[in-house]
Amino acid sequence: MHVRVNAAMSADGKLSTRRREQLAISGPEDFERVEDVRESADGILVGVGTVAADDPHLVLDRERQRKRSDRGEPPSPARIVADSLARMPPDARILDDAAPTYVLVGERAPYGRVSRLEKIGASVVRAGHSRVDLVEAFDQLETEGIDHLMIEGGGEIIFSAFEAGLVDELSVYVGSLIVGGRDAPTLADGEGFVSDIPDLDLDEVERIDDGVLLSYSVV
Amino acid sequence: MHVRVNAAMSADGKLSTRRREQLAISGPEDFERVEDVRESADGILVGVGTVAADDPHLVLDRERQRKRSDRGEPPSPARIVADSLARMPPDARILDDAAPTYVLVGERAPYGRVSRLEKIGASVVRAGHSRVDLVEAFDQLETEGIDHLMIEGGGEIIFSAFEAGLVDELSVYVGSLIVGGRDAPTLADGEGFVSDIPDLDLDEVERIDDGVLLSYSVV
Repeated sequence: MHVRVNAAMSADGKLSTRRREQLAISGPEDFERVEDVRESADGILVGVGTVAADDPHLVLDRERQRKRSDRGEPPSPARIVADSLARMPPDARILDDAAPTYVLVGERAPYGRVSRLEKIGASVVRAGHSRVDLVEAFDQLETEGIDHLMIEGGGEIIFSAFEAGLVDELSVYVGSLIVGGRDAPTLADGEGFVSDIPDLDLDEVERIDDGVLLSYSVV
Repeated sequence: MHVRVNAAMSADGKLSTRRREQLAISGPEDFERVEDVRESADGILVGVGTVAADDPHLVLDRERQRKRSDRGEPPSPARIVADSLARMPPDARILDDAAPTYVLVGERAPYGRVSRLEKIGASVVRAGHSRVDLVEAFDQLETEGIDHLMIEGGGEIIFSAFEAGLVDELSVYVGSLIVGGRDAPTLADGEGFVSDIPDLDLDEVERIDDGVLLSYSVV
């Protein structure tokens, strides 16, 4: 499986304010670019924190759906939520029937919540115990035909994916603003590395809108 | 006074690991560039947290000192520490006699610690109460001939300077590594903005070493 992280952060590395309010970090040109990346993916992964904060839909527009169909692909990539304890609200937009949805849970996720997600129509992938084991979960997703995975965030799932050594590429749009905040979410949160810090190769630097897109591959 | 923030962060916005251990974020070419910026400054400001974590010296090499002297300037820029409660260790390298040192304290700083700093030879600037009032402190520094100030970090003082509306320019070197950590220091920490978020203009993008230097002016 090929895994690409794509996210937008402020010039000081923040994904949003400390209140988790969404920010206009990029502009229309980058928005189109992100839609193109989504169009080329078999699945788009977000963490449950992002679902709680932003309630994303992650469904392509009609024209992109048609393009995918013309290529013989499902109209939208699968939507995937890493949700160790199945805490996701059942009315999340990502659970509607506009595209298939996978929920990655650990064995400790309460039975009632998991079966409720299944009843709504989500495919539940069990891997790990109190926390989802991403290596195992990604293996299972691959058997479902997900060869190109895009991770959109937030910072907890992005860190976990780097920690598990699963990331091949990172695209980060750096917006021209300062958000600040020692408690604001950053591109990579989690515990943080203190050794074996992942090295990147900077492949491309491109000015887009009023910021810059940095494209890396993981060494 | 013209204020320029210069710092190096990882691709996820971190200045160091969560243990505050220094990291090799940039390389030799950027190191020389930073020395040039220091050479052109009248004063270099760091926060007391940076003094505690890194014990920086902030003195130029002999050749740069000679160049400054040839221009009729003091051989080294003044070293300035924002240290609201005068918590700085008296054996900090920044307090030695290799260059003048200013310590910015609030009125609440204990008398004993302040007079100890003065005895060591530091010039103490009083502004604000429990926290240093940077606007007032910078005004006082300006009367001491500091017209070009460079702020090197860490994230607390950088945020405070943005919050006070004192920053004119930001140069940030983005190193090709992922540090992670929800508790790791970032380029701008503090409380964080939730409104009136400072906008930047991206003036220049330059690949240096194996990373990229982003140069902004504050709108």
